[in-house]
Amino acid sequence: MRELTAYMKSTVDRTEDALRQLLPREETYPSSIHRLMRYSIFAGGKRIRPCLLTAAYDACGGKAGDRAPVQAGAAIEMLHTFSLIHDDLPCMDDDDFRRGKPTAHRAFNEALAVLGGDALCIVAFEVLADLGRADIIAETARALGTGGMIGGQVVDIESEGKKVDRETVEYIHKKKTAALIRACVRIGAMLANAPAETMARLSLYGEHVGLAFQVIDDILDEESTTEQLGKDAGSDRERGKATFPAVCGMKESKRCAEELISKAVDALAFLGEKGAMLRELAEYIRIRIN
Amino acid sequence: MRELTAYMKSTVDRTEDALRQLLPREETYPSSIHRLMRYSIFAGGKRIRPCLLTAAYDACGGKAGDRAPVQAGAAIEMLHTFSLIHDDLPCMDDDDFRRGKPTAHRAFNEALAVLGGDALCIVAFEVLADLGRADIIAETARALGTGGMIGGQVVDIESEGKKVDRETVEYIHKKKTAALIRACVRIGAMLANAPAETMARLSLYGEHVGLAFQVIDDILDEESTTEQLGKDAGSDRERGKATFPAVCGMKESKRCAEELISKAVDALAFLGEKGAMLRELAEYIRIRIN
Repeated sequence: MRELTAYMKSTVDRTEDALRQLLPREETYPSSIHRLMRYSIFAGGKRIRPCLLTAAYDACGGKAGDRAPVQAGAAIEMLHTFSLIHDDLPCMDDDDFRRGKPTAHRAFNEALAVLGGDALCIVAFEVLADLGRADIIAETARALGTGGMIGGQVVDIESEGKKVDRETVEYIHKKKTAALIRACVRIGAMLANAPAETMARLSLYGEHVGLAFQVIDDILDEESTTEQLGKDAGSDRERGKATFPAVCGMKESKRCAEELISKAVDALAFLGEKGAMLRELAEYIRIRIN
Repeated sequence: MRELTAYMKSTVDRTEDALRQLLPREETYPSSIHRLMRYSIFAGGKRIRPCLLTAAYDACGGKAGDRAPVQAGAAIEMLHTFSLIHDDLPCMDDDDFRRGKPTAHRAFNEALAVLGGDALCIVAFEVLADLGRADIIAETARALGTGGMIGGQVVDIESEGKKVDRETVEYIHKKKTAALIRACVRIGAMLANAPAETMARLSLYGEHVGLAFQVIDDILDEESTTEQLGKDAGSDRERGKATFPAVCGMKESKRCAEELISKAVDALAFLGEKGAMLRELAEYIRIRIN
């Protein structure tokens, strides 16, 4: 675990250095949008996606110290932040706080929040393009589009206040959260030029760990205090959001999360010792519920 | 002119065929967002950007009948439509009609309009990625980001109702409109592997023709009827928008538009007969004001 903490800290530092360099400076005209972009991206967050990406890269024998996975991880954080800014908008989840700070449209204004989200999405593709790998751009776009993250968000919003079944919640979580997490793991492997068999197993790992991540988020939303979360606890329930605890109860949700983590770890067996960090990251995601 | 009409019609048909194939079908789950995306992209429009792209490709000796420029042109139309959907939102220009039809957030709802715009942007990058040219993706992202289209939109919104100078209006138009038009011309040339000297001259053509396009749009907004425009005529003035006629008068705006078109045409001299279609497209943009 001590090793994981050091690994995560180092990845977070390298990712944030890259973000500082890759995003336009606050003073650059027009300044307001650049301030918003930096405000949103440096609002905290565990940077779990870049950690998964670099861990997959390392597990597949990527070159130590290479800039490519860090750059790709920074792009993924931009894309993740883009989705959070738009999700928080008044016409979507209408959230005033995230990670204990006012959301972008509250700290700035709504028009700038829409455009700042757009701009983060676009810079991310520019950063990915600089890696010269069109296949990684295609992978990312597929994970984000209506067959992935955006599709999940559409169904999430359209399910609000309705009675939904487990299948629908699984669809939402798989698309809205797991698709991008799975893509992170795959991109790390792609950058290390992993063979097809490795890609298939790591995709499975990413899918399971990604779904577990969101199920655990649902559990935490129910069980934590507002202070612990940095946003309103229990807000999912109040809003009639489609969550795992809402459709199958807290006990089954926890069982399901544990099972998903086990399956994720099982998918890593072929890597042996090289899979240690990916295993620890899965464990890190799991222990949040205990 | 008859030749131009046939060329444009053929490009529009090929672009729209590509769009029909590239965008998810309406029935694909979740259906609502796919209906919005198709509603917005098939709401009309002259497809002038794909025409400029293919004309630049042809002028640079691109292979006749090649799919790449058509695919790139379709991606550009998606990006253009993404920007229109977000610009029309209540928190931005708050427009109810575009091209005589209700805007996306009026025909569907605001959340879906934000997400539908996002999704069009993302599919566009997926389509561009399928061309296997990371340089073209970088070019596109640069034209769209805060140093391009989005930057122009930020300054446009922040200038509303304020007294601005000509320099600011030029900035807005160059970034918000001309940057993407310039990119179209450049992408066409890049697909045909044009040499650096050709790129430089065509970039100039694209810049001039792009700025002229927006100046002429401003002029039309003042001089046309609502019926002719398919949106409220004179709405720029009512709203205190930064436009060319507002800062330097109608006469100077028309002189400036003519001058820009001349400069654009001059930049094509090196192409000789091969530049005929690009010249005719510049002329097509110009005659709208007569």
